[in-house]
Amino acid sequence: MSVRTIDVCVSPELVHLHEPQGKLVVVIDILRATSCMTSALANQVESITPVATLEECKVLGAQGYVTAAERDGNKMEGFDLGNSPFSYHNNAFAGKKIAVTTTNGTQAIVRSAGASDIIAGSFLNLSAVVNYIKNRPEDILLHCAGWKGKMNLEDTVYAGAIVDALKSELKHTEDSVLTALELYHSSKDNILGYLSNSSHVNRLKGKGIMKDIEYCLTKDVFDVVPVMRGGVLVKHT
Amino acid sequence: MSVRTIDVCVSPELVHLHEPQGKLVVVIDILRATSCMTSALANQVESITPVATLEECKVLGAQGYVTAAERDGNKMEGFDLGNSPFSYHNNAFAGKKIAVTTTNGTQAIVRSAGASDIIAGSFLNLSAVVNYIKNRPEDILLHCAGWKGKMNLEDTVYAGAIVDALKSELKHTEDSVLTALELYHSSKDNILGYLSNSSHVNRLKGKGIMKDIEYCLTKDVFDVVPVMRGGVLVKHT
Repeated sequence: MSVRTIDVCVSPELVHLHEPQGKLVVVIDILRATSCMTSALANQVESITPVATLEECKVLGAQGYVTAAERDGNKMEGFDLGNSPFSYHNNAFAGKKIAVTTTNGTQAIVRSAGASDIIAGSFLNLSAVVNYIKNRPEDILLHCAGWKGKMNLEDTVYAGAIVDALKSELKHTEDSVLTALELYHSSKDNILGYLSNSSHVNRLKGKGIMKDIEYCLTKDVFDVVPVMRGGVLVKHT
Repeated sequence: MSVRTIDVCVSPELVHLHEPQGKLVVVIDILRATSCMTSALANQVESITPVATLEECKVLGAQGYVTAAERDGNKMEGFDLGNSPFSYHNNAFAGKKIAVTTTNGTQAIVRSAGASDIIAGSFLNLSAVVNYIKNRPEDILLHCAGWKGKMNLEDTVYAGAIVDALKSELKHTEDSVLTALELYHSSKDNILGYLSNSSHVNRLKGKGIMKDIEYCLTKDVFDVVPVMRGGVLVKHT
């Protein structure tokens, strides 16, 4: 069997160049969409339906879904939840279906169409994601959600962490992979400090959610992998 | 006067998000288009006309231009030159007009439309580019040509070198700038070694042009800045 490959796409705007078709795609939006998804499913949410627009989210709300909507780091008026992983703690929404729309993360999921499998990665479930990848046969694409189409630091650092954990088993040839590895190696001893100058942390700082940021950079809180099945994210069992 | 900003775009596919309009755009294709342009103008070429297609290049050839055409690192059949900076040494084409088309660099120039000024940056003219930027009033966009729309290491490292030289004077807020700075800081003591695993160096290695690569990573060989004037690159005087 030939060695599987791992690749990093630093922005959803570039994903067509990285050919998600047939690959296992790990969608990454550390601050905070994929951290939320991990937290929600670990706290017994039944399913998460990612939608691109606020309108679609509203429609699902009318059908009984709990709605979570964020734009530019803010919870949107008229929806149940924003984009904080703490919202789901203590099984607050156990058994519920969540409809979610966010600035970047849900867009990255939509743009991963054609993948053979889509999962959500975050520091909160880093080792679970690594183990999931090890047990799959496909080539891997780490799809960073970035910020409105631009690359960002936290998603690329996380991609580097995944590559680092798998580099003895998977092959890579792209400079985006080397970039992600470099950023991870430079930051791994103090990721929060490293990201303190990043654009997104500065954006969120002003919103008083440093607690969210610190939490989203914590490794291996949950042994849970959100997997896409029939258009919704559910807990991999 | 407000502090000017500096930004890095890691791929021409993302340049619309970085708003080149009204900015001084530095186009960067270290291996090898902008290194060639610097070398050519330093060796008394009269002008360089970048064109997107082989056909346009042929048309200009019929009008008396010297033609330079590269795709995937190879010189194209039926054109005078490929993409080696050595072609222009010893004033080999002094006084000539060159029409050039390359895989990435000329595309990045085309996509910089709307800029108030476009110049070509390379390690060969690093300090000259820094000085040129210091004497201009606009915000700066460092536009990396990358490889077929994906980011690459050598262009991003060079962008980091420019930001590093100007960081006390210019403001930046984007994570792509932090990424470029990180890559430059990690590589600056041995850029050739650092890039030895990069995708493009591996691609070019197979073509036996290590001499070109080493040369293109040499700092400050020429005190020349290629500037776009009326659709052609000429030497800034």
